[in-house]
Amino acid sequence: MTTTETDTQWQHLTERWQELADFSGIGALLGWDQSTFLPAGAAGDRSRQQSLLAGLRHARATDAEYGKLLDAAARRSDLSPEQTRMVQVARQDFEKATRLPAEFVREFSGHVGQSYSAWTEARPANDFGRMVPYLEKTLDLSLQAASYFPEFADPMDYYIDESDEGMTAEQVGQVFSELREALVPLADAVIAAGAPRTDFLARGFDQGKQLAFGERVIRDYGYDFRRGRQDLTHHPFMTRLGGHDVRITTRVKENDPTEALYSTLHEAGHALYEQGVDEAFLGTPLGGGVSAGVHESQSRLWENLVGRSRAFWSAYFGDWRDTFPEQLADVTEEEMHRAVNTVSRSLIRTDSDELTYNLHVITRFELERDLLSGKLAVRDLADAWHAAYERNLGLRAPSDVDGALQDVHWYFGSIGGAFQGYTLGNVLSAQFYAAAEAANPGLEADIARKDFSRLHGWLRENVYRHGRRFTPTELTERATGQALTAAPYLKYLREKYSQLYGL
Amino acid sequence: MTTTETDTQWQHLTERWQELADFSGIGALLGWDQSTFLPAGAAGDRSRQQSLLAGLRHARATDAEYGKLLDAAARRSDLSPEQTRMVQVARQDFEKATRLPAEFVREFSGHVGQSYSAWTEARPANDFGRMVPYLEKTLDLSLQAASYFPEFADPMDYYIDESDEGMTAEQVGQVFSELREALVPLADAVIAAGAPRTDFLARGFDQGKQLAFGERVIRDYGYDFRRGRQDLTHHPFMTRLGGHDVRITTRVKENDPTEALYSTLHEAGHALYEQGVDEAFLGTPLGGGVSAGVHESQSRLWENLVGRSRAFWSAYFGDWRDTFPEQLADVTEEEMHRAVNTVSRSLIRTDSDELTYNLHVITRFELERDLLSGKLAVRDLADAWHAAYERNLGLRAPSDVDGALQDVHWYFGSIGGAFQGYTLGNVLSAQFYAAAEAANPGLEADIARKDFSRLHGWLRENVYRHGRRFTPTELTERATGQALTAAPYLKYLREKYSQLYGL
Repeated sequence: MTTTETDTQWQHLTERWQELADFSGIGALLGWDQSTFLPAGAAGDRSRQQSLLAGLRHARATDAEYGKLLDAAARRSDLSPEQTRMVQVARQDFEKATRLPAEFVREFSGHVGQSYSAWTEARPANDFGRMVPYLEKTLDLSLQAASYFPEFADPMDYYIDESDEGMTAEQVGQVFSELREALVPLADAVIAAGAPRTDFLARGFDQGKQLAFGERVIRDYGYDFRRGRQDLTHHPFMTRLGGHDVRITTRVKENDPTEALYSTLHEAGHALYEQGVDEAFLGTPLGGGVSAGVHESQSRLWENLVGRSRAFWSAYFGDWRDTFPEQLADVTEEEMHRAVNTVSRSLIRTDSDELTYNLHVITRFELERDLLSGKLAVRDLADAWHAAYERNLGLRAPSDVDGALQDVHWYFGSIGGAFQGYTLGNVLSAQFYAAAEAANPGLEADIARKDFSRLHGWLRENVYRHGRRFTPTELTERATGQALTAAPYLKYLREKYSQLYGL
Repeated sequence: MTTTETDTQWQHLTERWQELADFSGIGALLGWDQSTFLPAGAAGDRSRQQSLLAGLRHARATDAEYGKLLDAAARRSDLSPEQTRMVQVARQDFEKATRLPAEFVREFSGHVGQSYSAWTEARPANDFGRMVPYLEKTLDLSLQAASYFPEFADPMDYYIDESDEGMTAEQVGQVFSELREALVPLADAVIAAGAPRTDFLARGFDQGKQLAFGERVIRDYGYDFRRGRQDLTHHPFMTRLGGHDVRITTRVKENDPTEALYSTLHEAGHALYEQGVDEAFLGTPLGGGVSAGVHESQSRLWENLVGRSRAFWSAYFGDWRDTFPEQLADVTEEEMHRAVNTVSRSLIRTDSDELTYNLHVITRFELERDLLSGKLAVRDLADAWHAAYERNLGLRAPSDVDGALQDVHWYFGSIGGAFQGYTLGNVLSAQFYAAAEAANPGLEADIARKDFSRLHGWLRENVYRHGRRFTPTELTERATGQALTAAPYLKYLREKYSQLYGL
């Protein structure tokens, strides 16, 4: 093959990639608008437009000509390491999009619709039994889907790899076991120490002022409003609408200002990651965050390790009290810091705090793993749920409504891999933060004077700019010098909560 | 051909039409977001996304298979009148999209880019001479484009037909001459009568309250916020993002509350038309307003004939003063009504009032017609402009900056048909309103008590619901009993301004 031919081929590939990225951006706009501003009557129009666009994108992402371009590129020996990785990632995406037979995808998706619809009735009726046959079929289909990827010995590995490339059930399971052993007694001790004062949070905080405050903080963090914006939605999220358009959303509660603030900081963390990807990778397969776990590590880092720290409130409490002088007249900086670090036992994952959230996730991960391995039968899931909650959280739901019927994920076709990223993110957040601190001694003092430049700079240099250039494992090892490890996270939690609760 | 085959064909056609409508809706969302919320840094991403989508839509709107489906449908004799019109309109659109050779379209569009770019420098430099060769080429290319449609004897007819199907240069020219003869002396008389009081408009009106007031009025008009919304943009517009999603935008000035109010009423008029199209026509070639002139008639009707009427201010002045009690403490209802009906001579089309706006449009229309017919050479355009302004408006611009270089349209490739819809709209607004009044005696009293149901109902029944079911001429004749006529408009203007200015 001549150089001219190969260059033309490469040109075609990059055009394809830009086109696929633009399709994704348009799709993201359709979704963003649906959540922010779409008039109520237009839901049907929007869903048809989304199907049209998704169909066009899928056709372009899976057509044979594209597959040939990728195969030809994979045979080339003259590509740079970045180009080689682009082709590798694109081929993985292509395989995942093409290997499942269309007929099977249709069957699965039809079943999921029925299962979801049944769940919306079975949950309020506390009727887990009704969901057993649906969930059994979902499990069968999930195992069949995984079987199209025989390179994964364990089906759970296939599902973990979908969102956290290269990680395995065994690796995640070990980290999670270690976490559980440490977190259960730590949560017990914190809760026994008594709850901090939170009465003042319900004193009616002006919504506009709340939003303006959060936006001031994330501007300090380094979020670039020239390439993004914040709006209100029911469920906060971050979305990429283009190479230079990474938007976030939040929600506001008048009688709990921590809701808007921490939603904003969380989504801004995701956005800092996306905004930090190397300009040269935008519009290529490498132009985005690398995995669910690494992504969540950045939202958690900016939300929790920075935003719930003593140094953060030392920096911002003055502004905070200036913004809400009446509501905070009798509140000290320390009380504010303690209030945003309340720990309590809860039956509901989405209501839980930094510490116990992991126990909700680990419980689900272990149940999913046992379902996929055949160790746990679907009909025994509800009882297994209660037993696991008693063991891990010391609580038993009064019914299956807040037990095995709690989350939509399993009933919407997603068994395996749906939850683990959240806790992997927590673990990695501390691992990255510790490495950033080792390279930049005195980071805490930076935060206390609202100077995030060294922290943001280190993260951009070691994590953000790489996009999908490395696997999550490679990225973690390059940035922190070691593989995924729970030690920094446990150290962070123990120190923080010992100090806060005088343990 | 069997019934089954023809039904399958019809099914394919309607699917095509829905798909084309959905492409348009997605494109409208990309444009709406660009004008409302797009972060500054994302302009490049957005323009690439728009090209991608426009290219996909164009390919689907012009492909040979679609042409065959349309030809087959045109040969059928078993279609309903609505279906027959759908096919007719779709074939017209198809012809317009396919008859210009791709090579010619590329040349024209390349030239337009250069011309526009030169105009952005020539206008501030007051250098009409520099634009002469560009404009000469634009004129040549415009004549060539029209020549691909030999069914139009006069090139001007082709351009008028593009936006106002079925109307001709002769017909429009006659109506415009009649208008000019009447409007020039009327404007003279009104201006001689002296300007009303407007000092209070500059007293600082809260922007949020202005917007809320306008939204209350258009809700009264019948604008459906379940199928639309209003946002802020630099230039107000109305856009259809889906069958049930017709949005408007406005702009607010603290020291001129008439800006936001009348922009809102104007765009809401466009939107009432689009929201009123028969549900059965949505997603078909008939699912939208029929022409520039009829569209503008509805924006003008709700903005001017209703919104600047005595009855309107009789209905709303109390609310208006309750909303802005300090600013309006010394202002009467009559003073408010007079202030929104100020007439003055202006060199700038976009700054002009209800009465003189038409003279700006007529001037441009006549110059365009003379350019296309060869009666006027491009090199003489600047002088012809000044002479026409002296004749029609009694003003001479001090230079070409506000003369022949004023509007972007000609320099952006659009000679012929760009302006006439505005004044056709004014003429039709009064013709439709008079017919509505004849069918519903006492409409003015309805307005005075904020009851727009009979007016809106008549317009929906006689104009809106039909979409593109009839040509503009058919629609006008069916609704008003006669062809386009200036009489009702002149009667309206004479009565209104005689009363206001005691002529």
